[in-house]
Amino acid sequence: MPEFRRDPVIGRWVIIDSDRRFNKSDPSETESYPKDHSACPFCPGNEYMTRPEILAYSKISGRMPNSKGWTLRVIPNNQPVLAIEGNLKRRGEGMYDKMEGIGAHEIIIETPEHDIKQDRITPQYYETIYEAAIARIKDLRNDLRLEYILVFKNYGILANAVFEHPHSQLIAMPIVPKRVREEINGAKEYFSYKERCVFCDMISQELSSEIRIVDENEFFTAFCPYAARYPFETWILPKNHASDFDTISAAEISSCARITKSVFSKISKVLDDSAFSALIHMGPLKEKNMPHYHWHIEIIPKLIKTAGFEWGTGLYVNPVSPEDAAKYLRESE
Amino acid sequence: MPEFRRDPVIGRWVIIDSDRRFNKSDPSETESYPKDHSACPFCPGNEYMTRPEILAYSKISGRMPNSKGWTLRVIPNNQPVLAIEGNLKRRGEGMYDKMEGIGAHEIIIETPEHDIKQDRITPQYYETIYEAAIARIKDLRNDLRLEYILVFKNYGILANAVFEHPHSQLIAMPIVPKRVREEINGAKEYFSYKERCVFCDMISQELSSEIRIVDENEFFTAFCPYAARYPFETWILPKNHASDFDTISAAEISSCARITKSVFSKISKVLDDSAFSALIHMGPLKEKNMPHYHWHIEIIPKLIKTAGFEWGTGLYVNPVSPEDAAKYLRESE
Repeated sequence: MPEFRRDPVIGRWVIIDSDRRFNKSDPSETESYPKDHSACPFCPGNEYMTRPEILAYSKISGRMPNSKGWTLRVIPNNQPVLAIEGNLKRRGEGMYDKMEGIGAHEIIIETPEHDIKQDRITPQYYETIYEAAIARIKDLRNDLRLEYILVFKNYGILANAVFEHPHSQLIAMPIVPKRVREEINGAKEYFSYKERCVFCDMISQELSSEIRIVDENEFFTAFCPYAARYPFETWILPKNHASDFDTISAAEISSCARITKSVFSKISKVLDDSAFSALIHMGPLKEKNMPHYHWHIEIIPKLIKTAGFEWGTGLYVNPVSPEDAAKYLRESE
Repeated sequence: MPEFRRDPVIGRWVIIDSDRRFNKSDPSETESYPKDHSACPFCPGNEYMTRPEILAYSKISGRMPNSKGWTLRVIPNNQPVLAIEGNLKRRGEGMYDKMEGIGAHEIIIETPEHDIKQDRITPQYYETIYEAAIARIKDLRNDLRLEYILVFKNYGILANAVFEHPHSQLIAMPIVPKRVREEINGAKEYFSYKERCVFCDMISQELSSEIRIVDENEFFTAFCPYAARYPFETWILPKNHASDFDTISAAEISSCARITKSVFSKISKVLDDSAFSALIHMGPLKEKNMPHYHWHIEIIPKLIKTAGFEWGTGLYVNPVSPEDAAKYLRESE
């Protein structure tokens, strides 16, 4: 059973999971996905290889659960980081703190097509993923043990995507993770000084200066952030202030899907189908409608390695200025 | 010229350095060091390939600077992350903050031997490195633009070590990095509640429970931390409370060198010469003798990849419990 443990100095929770498969990376071995994907558990016909589905979309009326015919499918992860059953049992261990690794870890299988190409992916493709994620968040809000939900996507082996079949992930957890708490605290400080949302201010400065803008539509803007940690790091922000992702309107979902398609296409084109991670940062489940926090999507192409200096300091060295990165992305296509 | 930029939400500084060489990682290419190291700039005879040395130890009296005959050599990095000349010019850019990338980036060439084997490295080897690092810190303290010095070592390609020749690094910077500030703030909170140093408390709990202890000697203890982020993460802490690394006694330096040799040998043996990063966390240059902060060494073997989930949350999943890791390390040799 995984366990949460809290670092007594900086208060960071980690998950210790000794039952988890531990593969030491082998630098002499170039990893790649198996060429033959008849054994892919996410492919249609292999539904029996996964745990029973939680949600599925289908164009076939009367489709039996866990059978073919779906267009999108949500399943529990076979190797979950956190388990849904049990009590948190928050307790001490001498001076230390721990609790059980309770939570949910779900996989959103985005499409039945294992090999779908970027140029065949439509805005509708992302719209369906966002709708499924929102449905899952609304459902998981009923579990009062949970404090936070992270929706994310790892693409490519370098970004640690275990499966090649297109998928996103959702992890619901009983804590608000450190990075999100830092953003909220920072945004709260800004708000108490300026009485404005720091993200709203960033959007208006970026739209007026234009130099870091990647794309824009009715409800969303995409730009490379001023203090980007990684080359070609790109954020997508809703123009309308909101701290919760799962309360946006149908028109906003559609607009978000269109800009997602555009940004992913640009990144894929400019960076030659590079590995990346993308994630949604939204407010904690129990802190709704925050005036100072603004949900957003962060996209981080996996282009450089980080090591001692970055780990030891939290200070990143980025060899590509966000102005250059935005220019390349903006001008592609 | 590199530039510091501050994230307006969480206050994290990043270094944007567009002049830096940017190599996109290529997953299809297994990287390795060149077999022929006649062109290694750190090897004796190649002193002309580096910038002029800042410090050198030698057994030859009257050795000319930047010639052979040294046993350890400190040089400015040819591709420094930060530059020593100039003014900080801290200023705004709309709502954002930036300043010039002022600081020092030095390489400690640990030995003339390019291929020295772990079993031929003595405690004396590390003692000399620590003495050189301390000499450099004492000197850099005179530069009042500087706020922090990080001494660290990346070993192996997976840990981003650009050169194979054994070396450590030192980066002096005009800010206190985020990770260190977090440790200090957390330790200060603990101190204000308990009137004790959280690190001193950890040492006494670890020494009494013994389950996470890797090694111990007169002045130092090494253990796998309770909330370890990474498999086999190991910390070395001085038993005597001190926040500054460069004020420890000769006996402590010697004791620290002995435990460093022991821990590095164990890690190399158990993890089959794995890549790792090691770094010294000490107090900020302008906050001396802090009762609540405790300098220490963190060693992080590079065994697993991190991606979207870890980046998005700051929450790490560690598949090896620190108790198991400590047992393996303790029982080796």
